[in-house]
Amino acid sequence: MAAEFIYGHWAVMEALRAGRRSLEQLMITETVEAKGLVAEILATAAEKGVPVHRVPRRIIDDLAQGANHQNMALRVGGYPYADLEDMLALSKQRNEKPLILILDLLKDPQNVGALLRVADAVGVHGVVMQERRGVAVTPAVVNASSGAVEHLNIVQVTNLVNAMRDLKSQDVWMVGLDIGQNVPPIDKTDLNMSLGLVLGSEGEGLRRLVRDTCDLLLALPMRGSVASLNVATVGSVALYAAWQARGWEGWAHA
Amino acid sequence: MAAEFIYGHWAVMEALRAGRRSLEQLMITETVEAKGLVAEILATAAEKGVPVHRVPRRIIDDLAQGANHQNMALRVGGYPYADLEDMLALSKQRNEKPLILILDLLKDPQNVGALLRVADAVGVHGVVMQERRGVAVTPAVVNASSGAVEHLNIVQVTNLVNAMRDLKSQDVWMVGLDIGQNVPPIDKTDLNMSLGLVLGSEGEGLRRLVRDTCDLLLALPMRGSVASLNVATVGSVALYAAWQARGWEGWAHA
Repeated sequence: MAAEFIYGHWAVMEALRAGRRSLEQLMITETVEAKGLVAEILATAAEKGVPVHRVPRRIIDDLAQGANHQNMALRVGGYPYADLEDMLALSKQRNEKPLILILDLLKDPQNVGALLRVADAVGVHGVVMQERRGVAVTPAVVNASSGAVEHLNIVQVTNLVNAMRDLKSQDVWMVGLDIGQNVPPIDKTDLNMSLGLVLGSEGEGLRRLVRDTCDLLLALPMRGSVASLNVATVGSVALYAAWQARGWEGWAHA
Repeated sequence: MAAEFIYGHWAVMEALRAGRRSLEQLMITETVEAKGLVAEILATAAEKGVPVHRVPRRIIDDLAQGANHQNMALRVGGYPYADLEDMLALSKQRNEKPLILILDLLKDPQNVGALLRVADAVGVHGVVMQERRGVAVTPAVVNASSGAVEHLNIVQVTNLVNAMRDLKSQDVWMVGLDIGQNVPPIDKTDLNMSLGLVLGSEGEGLRRLVRDTCDLLLALPMRGSVASLNVATVGSVALYAAWQARGWEGWAHA
């Protein structure tokens, strides 16, 4: 797999911790002080045997293509995608009903990253996205997810509808988040079931065939003057509703 | 009040629609085509009697200070802040228990904008923030809220704790979103009460005196590998939980 450069404190830290990619070298700027979180990152790199190089800032500026890199870039192998069976195996292993997030051609790395961070927080078993025309797990997505994506099962499929049908044949219900008339609100169904939560793209929503493949459509109500919400907000609320319906299973909290 | 420049399609549109500020002039780039949403914005400006000027792009670049202005800037008077009584009057007028969002020194305009967009979507009666050391309603916040803030009651106070005490004396319960040990999860309380939902700042959380002034602390559970969530995510889920507890009151949907 082609090498890429992950940037930003938490993205680098979680890539090191997860250790699922090949970890080639960590570059940090010549002037940054090795204290606080930076010191922790350097200690983690040492523990994992990753060489560290001090380099001029402009090199990291180039590698991060103008993004806010926080003085570091980690050279790694490509993102290790999972497959549908990995997600279902994880749900069996945890003895939990499948909870899967399905993204229909989302375009904005910030939105996808924010959703993946929440997906990690609620403990989804995996995330499915389509290979073409939507966002992939780029360094910008890793960064926007605060590195959460390094711990998740992300499945890239060539055809989202086929993947949904495959999951349906394994008794996973497809619930689409939709707007529009006559869609019941999200609390009208018990989400404590084998669930694929399907989100449409920014602006466009669910494609027709994706919508038609859903077993059920639910809406997040809105009453304000501005009649739209960001897809990351809609997805976050829906993911939490699904986890709450499962009684916060897996929450380590006393 | 000093003039400022609002930029971005929805921010400009909602400032025009709300019409709560003085609306001085709309500048759009020489080359942008007057179609779609841009045509709607121009029609709204005409309807409101706001003069429109075609200007070179670099002028709008300057006014928006490098932000993504989408080819337009609206010169307006300062943001019209409300006061605590306005919020309570709105809840009485709607015959609803108060639902108020309270922000403790949030710093990031993106987070604050995202929260205000959700606050509008769930129909809060107002939002309270402290005048110093936190974000104010700047053009960046207006933009990040997709203009929703133009329709909201935002109250800027000199001392957040005093404002919380004032609301408590008027029977509004203060519920702080917190992390840490032994905080019960958000569904352990019926949020269908007169409610001030208190969010702490990015990284720092609730200040001690703000936390101590809360009647109750609740947590948003997390189980992932990355043990933190963005404050805008936490607030969005909590605001929706509060509105759901009220049976989606005010939702126009059939």
